[in-house]
Amino acid sequence: MALSNDRRIGKHAILLLLSDDSDEHLEWLKQLNWKSCTGKVGSMDAHKVVAAIETAAKKTGVINPDLYRESHALYHAIIEALNGITRGQVQIGSVLRTVGLSFAVLRGNPYENEHEGDWVAVSLYGTIGAPVKGSEHETIGLGINHI
Amino acid sequence: MALSNDRRIGKHAILLLLSDDSDEHLEWLKQLNWKSCTGKVGSMDAHKVVAAIETAAKKTGVINPDLYRESHALYHAIIEALNGITRGQVQIGSVLRTVGLSFAVLRGNPYENEHEGDWVAVSLYGTIGAPVKGSEHETIGLGINHI
Amino acid sequence: MALSNDRRIGKHAILLLLSDDSDEHLEWLKQLNWKSCTGKVGSMDAHKVVAAIETAAKKTGVINPDLYRESHALYHAIIEALNGITRGQVQIGSVLRTVGLSFAVLRGNPYENEHEGDWVAVSLYGTIGAPVKGSEHETIGLGINHI
Amino acid sequence: MALSNDRRIGKHAILLLLSDDSDEHLEWLKQLNWKSCTGKVGSMDAHKVVAAIETAAKKTGVINPDLYRESHALYHAIIEALNGITRGQVQIGSVLRTVGLSFAVLRGNPYENEHEGDWVAVSLYGTIGAPVKGSEHETIGLGINHI
Amino acid sequence: MALSNDRRIGKHAILLLLSDDSDEHLEWLKQLNWKSCTGKVGSMDAHKVVAAIETAAKKTGVINPDLYRESHALYHAIIEALNGITRGQVQIGSVLRTVGLSFAVLRGNPYENEHEGDWVAVSLYGTIGAPVKGSEHETIGLGINHI
Amino acid sequence: MALSNDRRIGKHAILLLLSDDSDEHLEWLKQLNWKSCTGKVGSMDAHKVVAAIETAAKKTGVINPDLYRESHALYHAIIEALNGITRGQVQIGSVLRTVGLSFAVLRGNPYENEHEGDWVAVSLYGTIGAPVKGSEHETIGLGINHI
Repeated sequence: MALSNDRRIGKHAILLLLSDDSDEHLEWLKQLNWKSCTGKVGSMDAHKVVAAIETAAKKTGVINPDLYRESHALYHAIIEALNGITRGQVQIGSVLRTVGLSFAVLRGNPYENEHEGDWVAVSLYGTIGAPVKGSEHETIGLGINHI
Repeated sequence: MALSNDRRIGKHAILLLLSDDSDEHLEWLKQLNWKSCTGKVGSMDAHKVVAAIETAAKKTGVINPDLYRESHALYHAIIEALNGITRGQVQIGSVLRTVGLSFAVLRGNPYENEHEGDWVAVSLYGTIGAPVKGSEHETIGLGINHI
Repeated sequence: MALSNDRRIGKHAILLLLSDDSDEHLEWLKQLNWKSCTGKVGSMDAHKVVAAIETAAKKTGVINPDLYRESHALYHAIIEALNGITRGQVQIGSVLRTVGLSFAVLRGNPYENEHEGDWVAVSLYGTIGAPVKGSEHETIGLGINHI
Repeated sequence: MALSNDRRIGKHAILLLLSDDSDEHLEWLKQLNWKSCTGKVGSMDAHKVVAAIETAAKKTGVINPDLYRESHALYHAIIEALNGITRGQVQIGSVLRTVGLSFAVLRGNPYENEHEGDWVAVSLYGTIGAPVKGSEHETIGLGINHI
Repeated sequence: MALSNDRRIGKHAILLLLSDDSDEHLEWLKQLNWKSCTGKVGSMDAHKVVAAIETAAKKTGVINPDLYRESHALYHAIIEALNGITRGQVQIGSVLRTVGLSFAVLRGNPYENEHEGDWVAVSLYGTIGAPVKGSEHETIGLGINHI
Repeated sequence: MALSNDRRIGKHAILLLLSDDSDEHLEWLKQLNWKSCTGKVGSMDAHKVVAAIETAAKKTGVINPDLYRESHALYHAIIEALNGITRGQVQIGSVLRTVGLSFAVLRGNPYENEHEGDWVAVSLYGTIGAPVKGSEHETIGLGINHI
């Protein structure tokens, strides 16, 4: 019932953002028949980060926009990933900071037991800081949920 | 005054944990003259995770154990990384879950301006879940602080 | 000094919102000489939810608008109830979600000891979810404070 | 795609705890073919509250103990319900308070669209306060998740 | 209806802890007929800090131990003060830190309107840091509630 | 390696706000060669409080506006101080409340060991409450960071 070593969905979601050569990871995802999408979003509004990821995941078919249970799974994965980004309060501009993020959403079964079904991983990587060029440091977040 | 593309301290700290071949990253760190340490910790007690990372960073000389300002910088970076791991409450066993984590601590200047001095990055990657084998999913965290 | 079984103020505040027949509960409140008000509010702004409840409680005389101590008691009861609604961050639209809520405010002494004086209970029940019809689930909250 | 008025899973989970006559609600659940369990737990340890609910739900077959995705869904519903109980920090004894709670776990589809599948609702109702008889007030919590 | 300039209960509670000469403040409190107590507590357990303050306030008659409404008012003031001390998570030893604190509890009416009745202020001042001598910095907290 | 009794930076930052005669404290700071600034800000927006303090500290040279590490140190000290002010959620107007605050920023070494270098203390004192004159109580916050 353990996590499969080759199908670590969180690790793949992060490496998709960090690798110089993301083709290797995309090739791997294709072999697994996993769904995925990536994108970028910069904002002082947390709700715009949520919206950008939801829109990308729905448009690319990673989640089915007609089923609330899939949106619900994705939403909580996004908020969990934002906890890693914001580290304390899920707030950005309201505490005078801004983010510039790349994101990836992966969908697949990371477990050896096929009955575990689909899970979703949302990874975020980029910078957070004052709304002044250069006054920022890196930040990362990962949210994982059953779908 | 921006972040240097080659010296992204958070990215290096994460890749040190996720790469199949971590030698490449260690080689890079050596060229930069950055300090680093890695380790593993599994626990239901958040304070044991904190202690494991602090001990490793002090023993390997990544931080100077005789200066409180260095311990203070590291402590806050650890707690920020734990926010990404726990996503909401910095609690583990007290809400009936357990973690198995790899960690890395890096110290160096990720900015183009040499006056930015040293920063510390704490990365955590592993699993979080019920205290039952296999009932877990991946989790990641990153904390960055000036030192 | 225990809670009176018949005068469970939180239970009454919740049942006022959930019962098909709320007349029974209103009758009960009348016999107890308790004050109460109910209302509805839908919003993406947490401060509008707070305002709607405060306005209703002041207009109906459940609390005395000229005493800050009564507003203060009500305010904290509202925020506590919102914790149950939002479950983590007292944020609604800023994390891209919306609520449609019924609320009740009750005022009376739920304890057997008459010296415990008046307490206030704020109950909230409704839905929370994406700003898309049907993409929502139920949510409940209760805050109780001495007044 | 909306919530069905008759199958409000959260409302049923709460009324199962608050009604003088819970038979009516159990009858309703039987007609819907929903699964459910109830129980009681008193503790100063949040992890014991989590464990009591998980054990009850697994023993009664409300969730399948062999699938992590079901445990994962239940766990997050429990933690969300505990947010309503604790209103700020998911801590009990560590901030010197204790709880005496009834709980219910319901499993079924509350939506008109049958493809929404199963959801789980965890309701908690009881008292929270100082570890002194009578020094307590009521508290309620509800967590809902797709399963 | 404003706060009285001379009877700023929070300011007095803080100055009672910070002044070299606390006699001046005690004299002032005597003239106002306010009740007060002070004490010290050092611990890695948040619940021991809560207990030390509650015990002192009850033993010295600042609050009436036989009325739950008074304990309830004090409890929330203590927890609010601890938020200032811990700045993020109301946790001490569970995230590997310790506190050494002085505390004061004041009871009186800080408002010009006598109908505002009694309020309670809990002030905390001391150090927080690693459980290592000298590895600590100052911290302060203030909680105010109607009683 | 302990805190110097005479150079308690947090205590000085608070007394600068609370003393009737702040000249004594300014004189003390001058002797220590510490940098400091004070100001006032009233707002329903947390980000305006952050901005007011950052602007004052940069304009008066308490921190160097050209070094991100100094802005970073100050930012976290401000957010920590706001935790004491808001006691739970770093939110003001979004939960329908407003603040009127005095602030002080001090920079110096509070430790006996000169190698501990500079630290920054941000103190806040004022009122928080409903956006209605008089419906407010006092609040205090202190954040301390190495710089």
